[in-house]
Parts: sequence; C-alpha cells; structure tokens
Amino acid sequence: MNKMDEILENKTINSWVRHFSRSPYQINNPHETDAELIEIKGNDSHFLAVTIDSVSEEISEGLYQDPFTMGWVTVMSNFSDLAAVGAEPLGIVISISLETTRDKNFREEIAQGIGTACEKLGVFVLGGDTNTGPDISLTGCAIGLVPRGQKITRLGCKSGDGVFLSRGAGSGNALGLVHLAKLPEELFPESLYRPHARIREGQLIRKYATICMDTSDGLLITLDQLSRINNKGFVIEADWKTILAPEVFRFCKIAKVPEWFMTAGIHGEFELVFTIPSSKINSFRQEAKSISFNPIYLGYAKQKPAIEFVLPSKKKVEIDMAPLRNLWDSNGNDLNYLMQKYHAWGKKWGLE
Amino acid sequence: MNKMDEILENKTINSWVRHFSRSPYQINNPHETDAELIEIKGNDSHFLAVTIDSVSEEISEGLYQDPFTMGWVTVMSNFSDLAAVGAEPLGIVISISLETTRDKNFREEIAQGIGTACEKLGVFVLGGDTNTGPDISLTGCAIGLVPRGQKITRLGCKSGDGVFLSRGAGSGNALGLVHLAKLPEELFPESLYRPHARIREGQLIRKYATICMDTSDGLLITLDQLSRINNKGFVIEADWKTILAPEVFRFCKIAKVPEWFMTAGIHGEFELVFTIPSSKINSFRQEAKSISFNPIYLGYAKQKPAIEFVLPSKKKVEIDMAPLRNLWDSNGNDLNYLMQKYHAWGKKWGLE
Repeated sequence: MNKMDEILENKTINSWVRHFSRSPYQINNPHETDAELIEIKGNDSHFLAVTIDSVSEEISEGLYQDPFTMGWVTVMSNFSDLAAVGAEPLGIVISISLETTRDKNFREEIAQGIGTACEKLGVFVLGGDTNTGPDISLTGCAIGLVPRGQKITRLGCKSGDGVFLSRGAGSGNALGLVHLAKLPEELFPESLYRPHARIREGQLIRKYATICMDTSDGLLITLDQLSRINNKGFVIEADWKTILAPEVFRFCKIAKVPEWFMTAGIHGEFELVFTIPSSKINSFRQEAKSISFNPIYLGYAKQKPAIEFVLPSKKKVEIDMAPLRNLWDSNGNDLNYLMQKYHAWGKKWGLE
Repeated sequence: MNKMDEILENKTINSWVRHFSRSPYQINNPHETDAELIEIKGNDSHFLAVTIDSVSEEISEGLYQDPFTMGWVTVMSNFSDLAAVGAEPLGIVISISLETTRDKNFREEIAQGIGTACEKLGVFVLGGDTNTGPDISLTGCAIGLVPRGQKITRLGCKSGDGVFLSRGAGSGNALGLVHLAKLPEELFPESLYRPHARIREGQLIRKYATICMDTSDGLLITLDQLSRINNKGFVIEADWKTILAPEVFRFCKIAKVPEWFMTAGIHGEFELVFTIPSSKINSFRQEAKSISFNPIYLGYAKQKPAIEFVLPSKKKVEIDMAPLRNLWDSNGNDLNYLMQKYHAWGKKWGLE
C-alpha cells in the first residue's frame, strides 16, 4: 500500500488498527473495503458484510438542520458501504443519542427519515439503542451477504480498466459549501440532499468490476484513496457537466463556484466509483441498461499512481491530492484559508 | 406483553419502533431479546445475532473517567448482548467520536481498553469509524451466530423455573453511587469496574434455560423487565451476600449503603439472569461446574407477575418496580430526592 500514510486520515485509522489482533475469519485487510467481509460458519455460499457509520459531525457543524436528513443519511451511508461490496442487505441496527430537550416531533422526524430511507431501499431496521447526551449522534450498523464468487473490494484495478461513477456527483459538497460559506440556502436547500445507496447497482457492478468504493468522502478523495490502495492512477476524461449531478452543475453556474470544488470537498454523496476491464464494458453497459442504470464514464486507469484530468484543451494535468486531503484535517475550520488554497490549486491545475 | 408500557423506557422504544416495518427475516419481536436474531440465506444451521450499544451517557455524566474503561465497556456491553442469546461471536465494529483536543495517549488508552477486552473474550475488532465531535461517544455493534436448535430469548419462562444469576451483581451501581454521591473514590475505584461478557456461560445456558437477559440495566430492572415480558413473577430467596459480588458487599458494609441499592440502580454489570426448568437444574449445574461456572441461585418464577423478596424473617414482600424505574427517567439528576425515595421504599419493603 504505497503512499497510504501520506494522508492524515489513513494514519489515524492505522493508529487505531495496530492495537487490535486480526480475526482469522476476516477476508479483507484494513482500507481494502467499504464494508468488512467475514466468513460465516455453516455458509458456503456467502460472506457476511458488516459496516458501521456515524452521522454526528454533520450535525454538530450545522450541516444537517432537518432531523429527517439526519435519519435518512444514517440509513443511506451505511447501506452505501454495503452497496460498494455488492451486498444483499440483511438490515440495520441504529443507536441514537439525543439531548433530553428534544421534543417528540424532532424524534418523529428522525424516525421518518430512517423509515422512509429504509422503504426506498427495501431494507429494515432490526433494532437499536437510545441514549441521551449533550448533542445529537446517530450510528448505524448495516449487515448483508455477498456471494463468495462475486467478492469485490477496493483492490484489484488494472491499468486500462474503465473508470465509472454510478450517478452524478457533488450534492454533498454543494450543501457543504452553502453552509460553510453562508450562501443563501435556496441556492442548494438541504432538502435537495437526499443521497441514495446504490444497492441494486452494486449487485450488478460486483459481477463485472475490478474495484468499487463509495463517494462518501467526495469524488476526488475516493479516486485518490483508490489510487493509493491499488498503486495505480486515473485519467479523468469526462467534462464537469457529465461528472456533476444536474442540480449541482446548475448550482455552480448560479453561485459562480468552480465545478471542480464539488468533487474536492469531503462531504460526499454516496455514489459508487468502480473500474471495469475494457473487454467487459459493453456487456456491463447492456446489463446496466436493463435495470435503468446508466453509469457515467469518467476515464481510465493507468500505471502511474496519480489523478490526471484531461482539460478541454486536451492538455493533461496531474493534481496533487495529499495537500488537498490533509488540509481538511489540519485547517478545516478556516474557510477563507481553505478557499484561497482551493482557488490557487484550481488555477495552477487549469481547473478554473 | 402485559404492563410493558407502564415503563417510560419501554414507551420510548415503542415510539421509535412503530415508525419502522418489520423484517421478514427477523426471528424476535421488540423487547424479546438482548440481540436481534435474523435468518441468513444459505445457512440452515445458525441464526445471525446482531446488537448495537453506545457508551456515551456514562462518559458525559463523568461515571467513566479512565479511557481504558470506555474502551473496555464498549466491547463488553456488546458481547454481553450476544452472550444473553448464547451466540458464538463473529466480531465487533466500533465507531468512535472524540473531541479534537484529545491527545494521542488518551486515544491509545481507549484502544488498549478495546484490545484488552477483546483478548479476554477471544474476539476481534473487524472495523470501525472515527469522528470528531463536542464530546466522547463509542458505539459498538457485535455480531455472532446462534445454533437454530438452541435459540434463547427473554420470553418463555414457566412458573416454577429456577432463577439464576451468572455471577455476583452490583459493581455498576457501586461505581455509580460513588460518583453520584461524591463518596471517596477509594471506596469503589473505577478500576474495580471491569465487567465481563459471559460468552462461554451463555453458550451453556442456551442449552438448558427458558429465558436469558443481561443485567446491563442492573439486576432489579432486568428481573422486572423479564417479569413484564413473560407475565410471570419472581420470588428472590437468596440473601444479599449471595447476590452481590464480594467487593460490592464489602463496599456496602464500609460505606453504610443498603445492599438492595446495588441491585436497584440503572448502571449494571453485564451478568446474565436466566431461568432453568426445575427438572434440568441438576444437569445444568453439573455441566456448568465442568467449565468452572458456578451460577448463583436467586429463587424461582411464579404465576403472578411481580418481584417478591423473601426477607430474613421469612416474610415475603412484593416490591413495586414501575415507580422505581420511572424515577430514573423523570428525576435522575436530583440525587437527594432519589435517595430519599429509595430509603422510603427500602423501609416500606423491609429491605433496609
């Protein structure tokens, strides 16, 4: 795993992991999957997939104000991890911590967010835990099954593979920027941020793809993490109108925000990034069409581990992701400084 | 489920549950188990058991000061839920939220608490999630397998069954009282509070018992909840020296605290309460002895749904649990009021 430790977040994860022994039943190594894959006794056909994900920073930082969003994202973020390993969901358990001052309506709106998201996905809440505390925190843990013969992880990409995105990106960072920069809310209201876990798509992707990961941390960070894990690079040929969700592209035009910002922040949208060997792209596209799934072609994988954009001028520009990723962990609260840096990089790379 | 809604906590849980559809793969109903039991496709031999449990209130209220305790209890509380359904553990995923101000040592001591607890149980951390927030919160989700033929829940107790406790109770409430009443810490230091999930014992209990539940909320609340779920009662014949852990009994003597308080508070110790049909008690005890497990006989189940204590005078006294349980939810912060109420009840019931 070349260059993993260049990224502060990876270092933090590794600093926890080294205290724990490894389970003999675990299939994946750290960083290799969105959900953990486990052998189950008495089951020759499937692995168990399990993941845990908390929604708390988004709430304490005021990004989510609507309790419906809090419940919705708790469900979607967890099932998105399952989607990225192509799992068939078994359900979710949820632990909820609320201030004692929150009224019944607030609780009910969280519950409705959870319930509606589950209905959309055809999944179920199996149980949970309720607590009181000084702030709001929701933690989900989703479980599912993955057919042994169709295991997919973040590791295994080959040079030349096509790079795809399940649907348009950027809604997470659009909401994040409106909040951070205190732009008028109507430019990108919170109610527009309703990410969907791509469960059905993941089950199709696992049959064709060499790697898969969700964009819970935004598109560029996802591509960079996949690049580091695979020691491969990605050349992104698609234009911004193709990459971004229509409402996000529109937001950029109206708010005069460089499009690439919508892929560079850390608040993602839970789409899937995956690579398909070029020989399988046609059959993949055909089967995808049969479930009304139209994946977005981003570009292709290459040998040199770096992220490269093909500019409208056809010029290729390599972007340096480590400073960008670490900036969030070291200076995430100083928006002016962040924006200055982003604009400087954007200009340097020719992305704005 | 007679009288369940008399208890505020049960009402709160039901107010969440009614927003969600029920999974067709789930075996248990709400309140019926410590861990959720799920059918797994392709597995005819086992059910999947899954549970989620957060350690946050204990930290925000200052009950746990030592980061090692925080990590330790996160592991033990989750595997204790698995123990209560007799599960064979597959592992745990943990989500950790810490203030950004916490240093590396603090993080490492949490990790050591987690790692040491896992080693003790022979279980593994499979993965996790790290966050920053305004306070400390740890959420675990443990998964395991239960043989289909040996399913055990909280429901199924028969009148006449013997009532047992896996080991002496009270350490959770001893720590709680020292903290709440600001008693000298050396009377019951936090380092004495190292509960153990009774995994091995649970796997034996499931072969004999009619019901099982852990004492994560304290012994009396556990007995009361089982009474309400089963619409049965329990007659407690054991004396306090038998019921309490030796260090807790000693603490009561030195601190001049009525012994029954140690079973009445809501901060438990993760022992197992279970009932065994009288015809099976001898063979259960024999097999238990073979793994150095000496369960404590508490008394027996009876038809009338109430908790009854047999006093040293042989007089039987019925205790009214609903006001006691609801007091914590409505007045948990006013210690003086709480203690007055407890002493009044204790005198009325002849327990002090």
